[in-house]
Parts: sequence; C-alpha cells; structure tokens
Amino acid sequence: MNYSQLPKEELQQIYDLQKAEYDSFVAQGYSVDIARGKPCNEQLDIAMPMLTGEGLENMPKNYRNYGMLDGIPEMKKLFAQMLGVDASEVIVGGSSSLNLMYDTIQRALQFGILGAKPWNSQPIKFLCPVPGYDRHFAICEHFGIEMISIPMTDEGPNMDLVEQLVANDDAIKAIWCVPKYSNPTGITYSDAVVERLASMKTKAEDFRIFWDNAYVVHDLSDTPDNLANIMEVCARVGNPDRVYQFASTSKVTLAGSGVGCIATSKNNVKDILSHLTIQTISYNKVWQYIHYLFLKDMDNVKAIMAKQREVIKPKFDALVNAFQDAFGSDSDIAKWTNPNGGYFITLDVLDGCAKKVCELCKGAGLTLTAAGAPFPYGIDVNDRTLRIAPTFTSDSDLVVATQILVCCVKLACVQKLLAEKNS
Amino acid sequence: MNYSQLPKEELQQIYDLQKAEYDSFVAQGYSVDIARGKPCNEQLDIAMPMLTGEGLENMPKNYRNYGMLDGIPEMKKLFAQMLGVDASEVIVGGSSSLNLMYDTIQRALQFGILGAKPWNSQPIKFLCPVPGYDRHFAICEHFGIEMISIPMTDEGPNMDLVEQLVANDDAIKAIWCVPKYSNPTGITYSDAVVERLASMKTKAEDFRIFWDNAYVVHDLSDTPDNLANIMEVCARVGNPDRVYQFASTSKVTLAGSGVGCIATSKNNVKDILSHLTIQTISYNKVWQYIHYLFLKDMDNVKAIMAKQREVIKPKFDALVNAFQDAFGSDSDIAKWTNPNGGYFITLDVLDGCAKKVCELCKGAGLTLTAAGAPFPYGIDVNDRTLRIAPTFTSDSDLVVATQILVCCVKLACVQKLLAEKNS
Repeated sequence: MNYSQLPKEELQQIYDLQKAEYDSFVAQGYSVDIARGKPCNEQLDIAMPMLTGEGLENMPKNYRNYGMLDGIPEMKKLFAQMLGVDASEVIVGGSSSLNLMYDTIQRALQFGILGAKPWNSQPIKFLCPVPGYDRHFAICEHFGIEMISIPMTDEGPNMDLVEQLVANDDAIKAIWCVPKYSNPTGITYSDAVVERLASMKTKAEDFRIFWDNAYVVHDLSDTPDNLANIMEVCARVGNPDRVYQFASTSKVTLAGSGVGCIATSKNNVKDILSHLTIQTISYNKVWQYIHYLFLKDMDNVKAIMAKQREVIKPKFDALVNAFQDAFGSDSDIAKWTNPNGGYFITLDVLDGCAKKVCELCKGAGLTLTAAGAPFPYGIDVNDRTLRIAPTFTSDSDLVVATQILVCCVKLACVQKLLAEKNS
Repeated sequence: MNYSQLPKEELQQIYDLQKAEYDSFVAQGYSVDIARGKPCNEQLDIAMPMLTGEGLENMPKNYRNYGMLDGIPEMKKLFAQMLGVDASEVIVGGSSSLNLMYDTIQRALQFGILGAKPWNSQPIKFLCPVPGYDRHFAICEHFGIEMISIPMTDEGPNMDLVEQLVANDDAIKAIWCVPKYSNPTGITYSDAVVERLASMKTKAEDFRIFWDNAYVVHDLSDTPDNLANIMEVCARVGNPDRVYQFASTSKVTLAGSGVGCIATSKNNVKDILSHLTIQTISYNKVWQYIHYLFLKDMDNVKAIMAKQREVIKPKFDALVNAFQDAFGSDSDIAKWTNPNGGYFITLDVLDGCAKKVCELCKGAGLTLTAAGAPFPYGIDVNDRTLRIAPTFTSDSDLVVATQILVCCVKLACVQKLLAEKNS
C-alpha cells in the first residue's frame, strides 16, 4: 500500500485504528526483546552433547599444558577448511572473535603493522559500510578512529566510493566488512566487489580489510549465497597481506563460549604472533579440543548448522510473512530484507520514523536495537533503518513482537504523513 | 665447602673429576628440560574429572549465551574468597591471567587510568623487583616501558629504595609483584612490606601495584606463608585504587586452560569494564561454570592443592636434598632457596658463573631457564642467579637433571676460581 497518496481522512482512520491497538498492547504490559543477535535455548541445546567429556581420553596430554600459541592443529585445520585458507594461515584464539578484532586494532595502534608506523602516531580513519555492525563501530569510536560511512548496495559497499577514498587518503587504514549475510542487511558481497576490494590501489600501504566472516556457515536456505575467497584473490593480485579474516563458533556451538580465530597471510600471522607471545602463553586448548571433538569436520559442521536452521528459519519466515501481510509489496512505509542466512532482518521504514518506531515499541514493552545503532556514532541520517534480531525470542513472543512492531511502524509513519499533510 | 680457599691443586683435582663426569653426561645424550614452571601430567590428571560434564544440567541456561561481562557470580565469589576481597571487586576473565595483565597495561597506555593521561603520552617506568618473572619484564620491554631493578630481600622488594623512587618520579607508574612464593625466589612479602607498598607516597597519582598473586593457594608446606591482604590495607590507608590483583587456576586445574581474574577496587572495576565492554561481549562462562563445579569452594580448592602438593613436593625435596648433599651448608659457590610454595627454586652460584652453568648444562642435554631471564632486559649484572623449575620433569629425569646441574655448577665455578688463581 502506498500510504503517502492516501487522503488525509483515510490516514486519520488508520491512525486511530492503530492507536487503539497500540494502547491495548501497552495495557497488556508485554516484555519482549528482539534487540541482539543471540541464539535461543533450542539452538544452544544442539551443542550440549559437546560437554559430556566423551572422546577426551584421546586428547594429547600436552594440550592440557602451556604452549601452542597459535592453537591446536585440529582446530587450525577445521577453520582453514571453513574459510578456504591454509592451516598455517590460522591462529585459533579464545572464545571471542570480537576480542581478536579489538586486539588486532589495538596492536596496529600501538605497534603498527609489519614494520609500518603505529596507527597511534597519526589520525586514522576506517571505512564503514552502512548499515553495519554496531560493535565494529563502537571499537572505532572507543579508539577515536574517524569513521567514514559507505552506503551498502545489494552487492556490498559502494565500490566506486571506496576505491576513490582509499586511493587518495593514506589516513584511511581499513574497511569493516561482514561479507556474508551482512549484519544487518543480510546481503553477500558479489564476486566483483570482492575482486575490487582485493585489488584496489590504496594510498596507505598498511591498509587492511577487517573481514568479519561471522556467518560463513550460517545459511538459512537450500540455495545459500556463495562468497568469493578474498584471501585467494588478494594473493593472486599481489596484495597478499591485505586481509584480516575473523570467524568464530559462537553461533555454531555456544554464544560467548565458542572458539574464535584469525585467518590471514603468513606474514601477518608471524607479525601477530610476535606480539601475542608477549600477551599470553596460550589460549584454552582443551576448549579447542572439546570443540574439535564435537565439530569434527566440515560435513558435520554443516549438519549442525542444518539443525540450527531448523530452529531459526521459522522465526525469520514468521517475521517476513507478517511484514508481507501487513504492508504488502512496494509499501512506501516499510521495506525489509529476507536474507539467505545470518542473524538479522533489516526493516527500513519511512524516512524520519525509525527513532519514533523504537520509542513506540519500547512504550509497548518491545525492545528493538536502538535506531541508529547500525551507523557510525549511532546516527542514521535518514532515521530509516531498524535491525531486527528474531532468533533469541520464543516463537510465541515473536508473534507478539511482530504485531507490536507492525502496529508501531504504521502508527509512526502515518503520524508523520498526517503531520506533513497538516503543515 | 668453601671452594675459594682451597689450594690450586685441590681445585684442579675437583675440576678434573667434574670434567670427567661432565663428559660422561655429554656422551649419554640426555634431553631434560627444567626451564619453565609447567605442571606435570600427574598434576594435570587431578583436574580431569572436571571434564565429564557432571552437574552441567544445573547450569543456568543463560550462561550459554552472550552477556555477563564480569563473569558468573559463582566464580566471582570463589575468587573473592581466595583473594580476600568482595565479589564486586572481581572480574572473571578467560584462561590467562598474563593476558589480563598485558591488557591492563595496554589499556593504561592507550586510555589512561580513571581519567588520568594515557601512559602512551609520556615515557614511563616500572619498578621490577629482581630476580622476578621474565614474562612480566617481557611485557614492559615490548611496550618500551623502562624497567628499574629493585633488589629483593627475604621480605620482599627493598622498600627504602622503592619509597624513595616513587616519591620523586611521576614517570614511575607501577611495580610488579609476585607477593606470595615469589617467582623465582619463593619468598612471601612480609606484613611490613605490604603495609609500606600500600601506604607509600607516590608522585604519580595513577601509580599501580601489579599484584600477581599467582601462587595464592600453592603451598608446599604444613606451615604455609601468610600474605597480608593488600587491598584491605590500601582501603584503610586511603589508597583504595592502588592495586590490580591477578590470579588464575592455571596451576590449580589446567595450565593455559584455567580461569583467570582481576581483583581490584570498584572504581577500577568500573574503569576496566568501560573498555572491556568494547573489547568483548563476554568471556567463556561455560568454562567458568565447569570450573565452579569442580572447585566448588575454598575447602575443596585446598583439598585439590593438597593433591598437587603430593605430586610436586617430592620433586622440590629431591632437588634441595641433592644440593645439600653436593654443596653442604654455607657453600661459596651455591646457595639455593627451599620455598614454602610456588613453582621455583632459585640457585645462586658464584658470581660470574650463571651463564657458564647454563651453557654447560645445555651441552649435556639439560635445558635451564636462560641465565639472566629473571632480570629486566635479560641482564643479571652479577651473572649469579638460576631459576629451577622442578615440577614438569618426571622424577627419574629430575634425578639426572640434578646430577648434571650439580656437576655443571662445580665445573663452572671451580674453573673460574682456577682462572683467578692463575691470573
């Protein structure tokens, strides 16, 4: 439905209807949270057999002791297969890939990369495709790194803009990417975008792509997206050290209690380990081995992810179907994504209404990711984009959440259109 | 025996005898390592029941998900009891307390502490009681922090010197301390030293004590040392924020796969969490809970440590007894510690001979911690101190190691005395 072309009276009727519905939600005192990309209990249950201790009698005894800074060979190999790299290009870390990203930036700030000047010695900038992952942007803001927003297209960041910027400003040291099932838009970078990212000329020779491959095996479809192997392309075009790739099993096994990794060129691995060997003696190799016993190999990882999909695909479908029912195709107040994988649905509402929708939802007991959160400094200049995380909530709560959300979108947008017509 | 007063001929006889024995060690091609403070397999076996999954059905389901940045309440409480602090003063981390120390220094460098200027903005210095822990010094060296050596006494660092230095130089930002069963001398700081550390006037208002309480429950005696509660003293004398305390279960459960923590004032906790919340979402809470199930409470921790002691006390005794047999009391070429706990024996040889002993040992297949390692920049100006780590090696290998070591000490020292008499 095209709301902006409705006559004022009809808009007012819709408004009144929605307002009545909204008031009834408020009266019912709901409390539902679809703010964060957290797995639900049914997903986490899938990994519980990991914790029985079965098979641990085969663990090499030295895994229980200090050493093996870059992780156990079994998990290096598994991550290598998952990411299409060589095991020698993998450092297996602790339970958090975000921690590995933060530390990688902190190292670059303090020490520089591969002998280049420390980033701390100069004002630096990161390119931030938007909408993007709020925790990436929070790291930049925390370190005082200037963020430059790059609009996302259906194929990845706007590469014309990216190429132009990195070619001319050596303060631009990096770009954040969630290349597969992007957080939050759900798109996967096209081969052409990957090729251009790998081969573009950068004025900064210590330019790095932070390739957060958070959803590498997190398909929601029988025809999953295919992401080109950026490290392969980088090696081919002569920029072998350009990419820091990150992944973790947080959404394969246990959230916050998974195993994270960095995959990067051997030069970068050596550079990182030269600092890491001072920072720690080794990561938790027993936990890594427990993961190896449970995950086994890529076929088994895919089987686990199929179980995950069984739990969460209906949640995505429910949300998307409800939006379709409520707004129809080509609505001018709501457009949403229907991703092939990942953890999020992006809902774009009428410009200038996202904050209002959040506020209304909050009033009715529904917590959304704050409007603006997927943008640097929390500022969505269009006040348009909402990130929806359907996985954590129970199916029944998700029904309520969707009803509240739909109601609040209509209410906020119609109110705006009414105000415009009145002015 | 007092070797320096022996006539030249007698020294030459001893030398010849030891040289023959040394050559026979070399011929036998041994390979033994007593370099690092690593637990042996029998110690690690003690923790294996931790990994059966028993009791995990009682784990709160949300421990499997993101959140609880400061750790699970059960482990906060247990560490609080272990360290004599309040649970609100504890952040439970990942598997490495060294990593927590490194990160704490990196944060101070990048951001400053409690609103003070970042340490990166000025040349800074750390006080380093010597001999000390090589990994502490490695962190300083890596960050370019100037290290000032402070001689250790039987009661802790020379406090007259410490007080004088910190009172007059605001570039001195910290002191490294392993206050209980100090690495490597094994002494425990006296109450008076703790009191002085807590109450001394420091020119730098952001001065911190890095209190690495690595051996807090690692007693080797029925009459264990008692360490005063420094955080209590600091609070009492009006310096509540002075201490960052660290501990871990690496030598209670599994080395490198334990659980580490920081204990510090609530102000400091808040300051740390304000950065940590950007660095990671949460640490491995499932691992924390698995530890809680195994460790239960302080009584049980003590029972576990009693088992540990059963395994390693004979190793310490074997070494100390062999030294006594070989050198007797009041030897002028070898003095050693007989610690009440911890992981190390310090062996001081005739000045100018420690490197030579290491070198000779290496030639006979025995790896020691490098001479100089327990000193900033790896420099033992007296070339005197050797750190012996008896725990990891099997009992039979330790017998051989001790024989080689004794032989090499005699050989190196007598050679030096002979050279002096000849010059």
